[in-house]
Formats: sequence, structure tokens, C-alpha cells
Amino acid sequence: MVSPAPEVVFFFTWRLEIEHLKNLYYSHSMKKLAVVAFGGNALLKGDQKGTIDEQEANVYETCEHLVQLIRAGYDVVLGHGNGPQVGNVLLQHEAGEKLYGIPAQPIDFCVAETQGSIGYMIEQQLRNVLEKEGLERDILTLITEVIVDKEDQAFKNPNKPVGPFYTKAEMEKLVENSKGVYHEDPRGRGWRKVVASPRPVRINNVKSIEKLARDGQIIITVGGGGIPVFYVEPNKLQGIDAVIDKDLASAMLASQIHADEFFILTDVPKVYINFRKPDEKALNRISVSEAKQYLAEGHFTEGSMAPKVRACIMFCELGGREATITEASELGKPDAGTTIFAE
Amino acid sequence: MVSPAPEVVFFFTWRLEIEHLKNLYYSHSMKKLAVVAFGGNALLKGDQKGTIDEQEANVYETCEHLVQLIRAGYDVVLGHGNGPQVGNVLLQHEAGEKLYGIPAQPIDFCVAETQGSIGYMIEQQLRNVLEKEGLERDILTLITEVIVDKEDQAFKNPNKPVGPFYTKAEMEKLVENSKGVYHEDPRGRGWRKVVASPRPVRINNVKSIEKLARDGQIIITVGGGGIPVFYVEPNKLQGIDAVIDKDLASAMLASQIHADEFFILTDVPKVYINFRKPDEKALNRISVSEAKQYLAEGHFTEGSMAPKVRACIMFCELGGREATITEASELGKPDAGTTIFAE
Repeated sequence: MVSPAPEVVFFFTWRLEIEHLKNLYYSHSMKKLAVVAFGGNALLKGDQKGTIDEQEANVYETCEHLVQLIRAGYDVVLGHGNGPQVGNVLLQHEAGEKLYGIPAQPIDFCVAETQGSIGYMIEQQLRNVLEKEGLERDILTLITEVIVDKEDQAFKNPNKPVGPFYTKAEMEKLVENSKGVYHEDPRGRGWRKVVASPRPVRINNVKSIEKLARDGQIIITVGGGGIPVFYVEPNKLQGIDAVIDKDLASAMLASQIHADEFFILTDVPKVYINFRKPDEKALNRISVSEAKQYLAEGHFTEGSMAPKVRACIMFCELGGREATITEASELGKPDAGTTIFAE
Repeated sequence: MVSPAPEVVFFFTWRLEIEHLKNLYYSHSMKKLAVVAFGGNALLKGDQKGTIDEQEANVYETCEHLVQLIRAGYDVVLGHGNGPQVGNVLLQHEAGEKLYGIPAQPIDFCVAETQGSIGYMIEQQLRNVLEKEGLERDILTLITEVIVDKEDQAFKNPNKPVGPFYTKAEMEKLVENSKGVYHEDPRGRGWRKVVASPRPVRINNVKSIEKLARDGQIIITVGGGGIPVFYVEPNKLQGIDAVIDKDLASAMLASQIHADEFFILTDVPKVYINFRKPDEKALNRISVSEAKQYLAEGHFTEGSMAPKVRACIMFCELGGREATITEASELGKPDAGTTIFAE
């Protein structure tokens, strides 16, 4: 056997040494990475019209709470909803087509618009809060596609209503032009488009998001659950008529960027069982199995707390350690909210 | 004098060695960085209605040409316009307010919307083209604010018309509510809002953009010239009613990220003097002084070639080496377009 030349040996030990020092450096500097998801109604409250001033004031308040998490030593990635905002955009598109003949765009396009506008409002207000607090961080808002599976069962039975109400005649014309599936509104307001709400499969650009966040940048992403796209051919992505649950998309994101913790913000400090009953009880820490049992027992409202609990379970089942549901003002406090932990 | 311990000497020479190897690595791996700016009409042509299918087909074609630049060894940052798109958004907002009482948002918000939707269309089609070509690159679309100076002369005389036409009565109501300045349309179509077009001062997140691009990611940014914001207080940014020329914003971006080259795409292969006259002459390479002289002599149309030439001059005067105006199909070819070079 021929021994390698001493230079080669030196080179390899030297490479190993660098690798070791790099690991040491990272293990010391590495902070915990948190994904925080908040609803579109953290920006636009039910009783408001939705001017930019109202939305900016609302988000400024949320950002003041987020700072507590940053001060507590977290790197932060933000996901957000867009319910009220994309509702408005769909109406504006329909109005623009009626009055000016501007083609109303499909929902993937409209979600992209809200990622731009909501991302802008969050980024701007968060930057203002950070400057006030003397914290220096870059904030990057990314337009984010989320890949879904065309074979997802949800596409067989679209049931999520979106956009304006149509008369029967308008609806029939839309159906004629293959513009989707419509359900009659049970409250008699007309016909409304229904789209599928498939499970998020892959968040685009996760490697970059993880790297940027670990590098200290704050990232705003998966707005409105992400722009729904699918592989129409093996190497070709295309938008699709669908909405992705923003809590599930944020949970998938948290898992795919290996987040240490996942927070879902809501308007109550904790999750309750027997909510609003005499034996109402706030939950502090529950296991995934307990969460599943409470879900099965119907403790959590569909369209409100239930999807949030499901998103936390998903994060834990995909390898996450724990996920917390709470309100913004609790962020950074010990024992904030209700934590669901992996067993 | 006490000599340092041998371990210390070793540590320092070793540090220097790492630094040296790092430099060597970068000088070999560092490709040229190009900023490419293209117009909103590369997506939405004058005779089209602007459906997503039309816009995606247009941008797919442009992306096929962009690939030549990537193949030629460039790292690439893309800037884009939003003229026709933001015009539509402003009309949709006005229509939404009329029909549904949804507050029409200010122009900074609308620019953010177009950054989302146009960014999505470009990112998606570019990704599809790259996949087809077997090129692996992450593409990140950033929502981008551009800081302007409130004292910019342009704010004293807003003159860039945007959005819908109003009747005199509608206009007077808007003015009453401090909703901007309006000019009467010379072609009798009513009254139209005019906003300032200030000079871009600083592009937000330039350090991250440069780092990401040098790291091999393709970045889509400064859409529509960027979201116009200004410092309303020393540490507080706020949106402002303005539009920033997309070529100037891209030139400023190119300068601030130390781009090696700057390309502005248009619909002619070269810049001409005596355009459409018997002595028309295509320009190949001209110095900044020559470009200024041709500008002064009125060779270039305002609102079309003149701002592009000015943006190239700006890039060179801010320290850039050279800037090129050409059409997409020329990208990556030797002697493509008209190059303006620093003296």
C-alpha cells in the first residue's frame, strides 16, 4: 500500500478541522427558528372597511408583539392568511370586468396579488417597529407557490366558497365557459364559486427560506396559504383554482424548513375544551393523541379552532417537536397559549 | 519584546490562509452579475386584454431568451415594469368601490399587488423554461420598496397621469377628501389623477439581493419601479402617492448591488439616431458623453427610448461599467444591442 504524500494528509486533516470549527460556530450562533402564522383578520377586522390605514394600524400592533419573540432569541418566518383581502380582490376583479371589461383573473393570480399587498404592509410595519426598538434585521417578503397534488381527494368535491355571488343566469354563462363549479348559497344570496382546498405538498424555495432565516433575516411567506400550483406535466407548473388552508401551509413550511417551533396566532390566549360551557377548561400542554381525541369529540369549531389544531398535529407528525396556539400579546411569555407536543 | 506563542502564530497564518483560499475560490466561481429590466408590456401587449394565459405566454417567450444569458454564464436579477397591469388594478379598485364599497387603495398598495401577480407569472414561467432546459436555479420573487426623497423636485409638480378618468364632480369630491391632484385630460376624457415620479434613492434589501444573486439564485425585484416609500419620520417609512420609473429603479438597483452589466429590454434590437428618417443609424457602442449629446439633440422619444438611455447613463455615472439596450432575442449574443459605456 502506498501512503499518501504528507501534503495530502495535511490537506485532509485541515479540511476536517475547518468543518469542525464551522460546526462549533453554528452550534453556538444557531438560534431557535420559529414559524409564526397569523390570520388575514389580524390585518382586517370584521367591522372594518379595510383601508390601508386600518390594516397598517392592525398589523403594527401584531408586529409589536412579534418583537418579543425576536428579543427572546428566535429567528422568525411569518406566514399569513388573506381571507378578507382575497375576498375583496375577487370582487374588485368582477367589478372591473363588469365596468371596464378587464378580464377577471383566476384565484391563483388573486392570491399572488394579496401576497404582494399584505406582504408589503407587514414588512413595512415590522420594519418600523424594529427601527423603533433598535433591532437591525433585513425583512424579505417572498411570493410563494405551494405545490398541490391534482389527485388530491379535495378536487373531487370542491366545497370552499370564494368570491362574489352571481345570479343564476350569470352563473350559467360562467359554467358554459368552463369557469368553475358553483353552489347555490343556502342563505339565498345567489350562486357562488366553490373551489377545492387541497393539502399542501411542497412549499417552493424552502431551502432558501431556511437559509435566509437561519442567517438572521425575517422572511414573510406562504401568504394566504400560498399560490396553489400543480404539475400539469412532469416539469411544468401551472396555477389551479384552489385555496390552501393557511395554517396547514404554514405547518408544512415549518416542517420543511426544520423549524424548532410553530406558533399559530388567534384571538384567544388558549385553546379550550367545553368552550363557553360551565365546565370550560383552558388547555396548557397536550399531546398529539390528546389533541386528536378532543378533535374527535368535537371540542373545536370547524373553520376556526379545529383547522388550527389539525395544523399543529400535522407539524408534530411531520417531525416537529411542539406547536403553540395563542394570541399575539402572549408571544415570548413562558407558558404562552396551548402547546401540542409530539409524543 | 515578547514573541507570541507558536500556537498564536499558527492560528493567524492559518486564518490568513483560509482568507486566501476563500478569495481564490470566489475569483474562480464568481460569475458576472447582470440586472435585466423589462417592460410591463413584455407581459401584456397593447392589443391584448390581459388574461393570465396571454400574459404567461408572453413572459414564457421572454424567459426563453433570458436563458441565453444564464447559459452565457451570468447571475441574473430581473426588474420589470407594470404600466398596463397597475392601470388595470387602479380601475378594478375604482370599480370595486363603486359597486361594492370596497375602499380603493393608494398607488403604493396597488404597485405591491402587481409585484405579487407579475412576479408570480414571471417566476412560474421562468421556472418552467429552466426545467425544460435542464437548468437548476432557485428563483425568488421579492416584494420591494424603493425609498424616495420627499424633497424631490418631482413632488412640487406631479405630472404622471395614473388610474381611471373621473367626471368633474367625482374629481371635486376626491380633492375635497385630500385624495390627490387631478389634471383635465387634453383629449376630453375627464379628469385624471397625476402623481410625482421622483428619483429612486435607495432600494430596500440590496445586500440580501446581491448575496442571493451571487449565490446563484435568480431574483425578481423592483417590480413597477418599486413600491414608493419615504421617511415620514427619521425611523418610520410610509407609502407615498408616486410612481418610480422602472428603468431608473433598475439602474439604481444594478448600481447598489454592484452588477457587472445592466440590460434594458425593449422591442427594437438597437437604439437609433435619426430614427425613421432617411439617415437613420443604429448605434453599437457609445460613451456616456455621446449618449448625453444625442439626448440633448432630441434623438430619443420621451416616454420611450429617452428614459432608457437616461437609466443607462445613470448606471454608468454611479460606477457601472456599461449598460445595454436591446430586445430579448439578442440576449447572450456578442455585440447585442446598443451599449453605453462609462468613460
